[in-house]
Amino acid sequence: MSTQDIEPLDIERIREDFPILERTVGDDVPLVYLDNGATSQTPEQVVDAIVDYYHGYNANVHRGVHQLSQEASIAYEEAHDRVAEFIGADGREEIVFTKNTTEAMNLVAYAWGLAELGPGDEVVLTEMEHHASLVTWQQVAKRTGATVEYIPIDGDGQLDMDAAGDLVTDDTKMVSAVHVSNTLGTVNPVSELADLAHEHDAYAFIDGAQAVPTRPVDVGDIDADFYAFSGHKMAGPTGIGVLYGKEHILEAMQPYLYGGDMIRKVTFEDSTWNDLPWKFEAGTPLIAQAVGLDAAIDYLEDIGMERVQRHEERLSRYAYERLSEFDDVEIYGPSPDQGRGGLVAFNVGSVHAHDLASIVNDYGVAIRAGDHCTQPLHDTLGVAASARASFYVYNTEAEIDVLVDAIDDARELFA
Amino acid sequence: MSTQDIEPLDIERIREDFPILERTVGDDVPLVYLDNGATSQTPEQVVDAIVDYYHGYNANVHRGVHQLSQEASIAYEEAHDRVAEFIGADGREEIVFTKNTTEAMNLVAYAWGLAELGPGDEVVLTEMEHHASLVTWQQVAKRTGATVEYIPIDGDGQLDMDAAGDLVTDDTKMVSAVHVSNTLGTVNPVSELADLAHEHDAYAFIDGAQAVPTRPVDVGDIDADFYAFSGHKMAGPTGIGVLYGKEHILEAMQPYLYGGDMIRKVTFEDSTWNDLPWKFEAGTPLIAQAVGLDAAIDYLEDIGMERVQRHEERLSRYAYERLSEFDDVEIYGPSPDQGRGGLVAFNVGSVHAHDLASIVNDYGVAIRAGDHCTQPLHDTLGVAASARASFYVYNTEAEIDVLVDAIDDARELFA
Repeated sequence: MSTQDIEPLDIERIREDFPILERTVGDDVPLVYLDNGATSQTPEQVVDAIVDYYHGYNANVHRGVHQLSQEASIAYEEAHDRVAEFIGADGREEIVFTKNTTEAMNLVAYAWGLAELGPGDEVVLTEMEHHASLVTWQQVAKRTGATVEYIPIDGDGQLDMDAAGDLVTDDTKMVSAVHVSNTLGTVNPVSELADLAHEHDAYAFIDGAQAVPTRPVDVGDIDADFYAFSGHKMAGPTGIGVLYGKEHILEAMQPYLYGGDMIRKVTFEDSTWNDLPWKFEAGTPLIAQAVGLDAAIDYLEDIGMERVQRHEERLSRYAYERLSEFDDVEIYGPSPDQGRGGLVAFNVGSVHAHDLASIVNDYGVAIRAGDHCTQPLHDTLGVAASARASFYVYNTEAEIDVLVDAIDDARELFA
Repeated sequence: MSTQDIEPLDIERIREDFPILERTVGDDVPLVYLDNGATSQTPEQVVDAIVDYYHGYNANVHRGVHQLSQEASIAYEEAHDRVAEFIGADGREEIVFTKNTTEAMNLVAYAWGLAELGPGDEVVLTEMEHHASLVTWQQVAKRTGATVEYIPIDGDGQLDMDAAGDLVTDDTKMVSAVHVSNTLGTVNPVSELADLAHEHDAYAFIDGAQAVPTRPVDVGDIDADFYAFSGHKMAGPTGIGVLYGKEHILEAMQPYLYGGDMIRKVTFEDSTWNDLPWKFEAGTPLIAQAVGLDAAIDYLEDIGMERVQRHEERLSRYAYERLSEFDDVEIYGPSPDQGRGGLVAFNVGSVHAHDLASIVNDYGVAIRAGDHCTQPLHDTLGVAASARASFYVYNTEAEIDVLVDAIDDARELFA
């Protein structure tokens, strides 16, 4: 189906699913929530699924014979199946639930990186990596004697793929790249990066925290070896993330956290491990959170991820164009015509991003200000911080107008 | 106040807070939920707190200038204060939120154990440790060349403290012991164990997963260096656990997970770390879960932990005595007069524990069957599995009677 045929979202109907959008902030002004890159709001369908869990079948999973435990176990395991289907994985064996995207990256860094990396090995990142990836691989490299290289970005905030071709060599063991940059909005050529990694027998880890919530993602099409994202940015609950890993790779890896549920046999001397994915899910898992994530996927699939993507792109373009009307506004990352995710990071003249966020907050507008967990990228951009507006299925052009009007007032205040 | 002065719980009123207790299972028989050692049920006050979060102030914490983020940040930080106060810690710096008790143990094993242990060092556990502690220290010992020793239990399921005195030496770097055994019900002399560890300059890690939900716990009185427990066993949500650590120890430890929020300054070359407790909380934290845990503490404190403890002891004694009426029932652990937590693990003749749990499930009774994540302890007891009934604030003697009657029928079935 061509994108021409995709019906736009019925935003008024969607907004009814999010009671929080009815609230006011500050001096009784309506909330305009444009901080979805940090966390999305949670539709009533997801809240209801969590409440239904606690009201109906709250129990510990896997080890229980009784009916509640069986019901909870089925729901928990089916949530893995649902996630697998949603991102095009082969099955639940490839889906590990973690507490957030960050833990998914650390899991691979600890269980694969510490075991497999050594002096002379290289990990190739991008200059636009989130701290979750950048700091984690940096520390694993320090411990193992491996080195970290960064694929540079060009003036449009796009990866320099020629440089990538030079940086990835037979010494490279891992290429770890963000799918959609949480600061630049850049949509990286992750399939190309995975191919490049595989040409050199390296693995590709893709950080999909901003991608899975906002566009169709198929890990098989990308041919990612690992792929990670979080529930709370995709209309799901806080406290759950997902690590996808190819089954044969996860199978070969040692465990990460040790404890109940991840073992098969334990003696006072030694232990053996459970099947995938449970080998990587020690202790009482994130049961209510998995139920909520499952419901969030239902919610997004009911809308349709192609439509979500188109909506994100439309709002991103609108915000980019409206903010471009101000000649003292600097927007980071590619133009809408180059393709970008549903967020716009920017600075206004010499106004500090925190001051800007504070002023627009008085207008009810929630945007983020800071380094968005990409300090080194901000160093590269030559700024300490930026403001960022990020959009989701319930946002409208009218809300972006409120932001732009507030920024206009802020410019006059600081002029 | 003497325990004589403590009012018993108004269980009928308490049960109204737990809608799940109204449900039926199987062939429309009322649910009798006696699997609280695995997970407790969740009162409406906690569910409401979670719903209020998603309806009212769902946002990412710490990095946000806007009002929603400020409200979420305050709630999230105050949840740390609330936990600190509840267990007698000195402040939020000593309270790290993890996804479960298991992660709390792995955090210390990774961040302290891998860095500090080496050949010749000893970690002293007990024979009744949960896999979360046993498997974790076993694997850290394997990686570091340290050895693991186990304090044996006597015929009553109590620790042999004379043996403990011999096992803990100047080579010991860590004594890790369960506070209340999830299988035996034994209440260990954790303060004595901490003193013993400290005499040899070792640390004491206490697993309080079964203790904090069921009795007043003061980490200062115990003088524990680390103490861990989970929200979902104490009327709180799944997906959150707590690691308490003495501030100076946590301060000296390297981080565990790397990523956003736990850093201070990041460059392409290196990183520095945030203050406690955030140094140990990488990525988007368990925000809704922290709000739920806070509400669970409110709920339990409204009841009063002394009253909870007394109720647990009363039900434990009643179950012990009723099960003792059968001469083919073997109960593990100390007698009620020796003190025990609110659970009873047992076997009935040659009936397999899973079969027993399956039969009583037909009577609506939810009990656990298996090794309860203490396989080596079960080896010591000479059985592969046991059945376990475990109690919480909403359970009654009448419910234990339903269990006992169901067991009586099961005995006849297998006779």
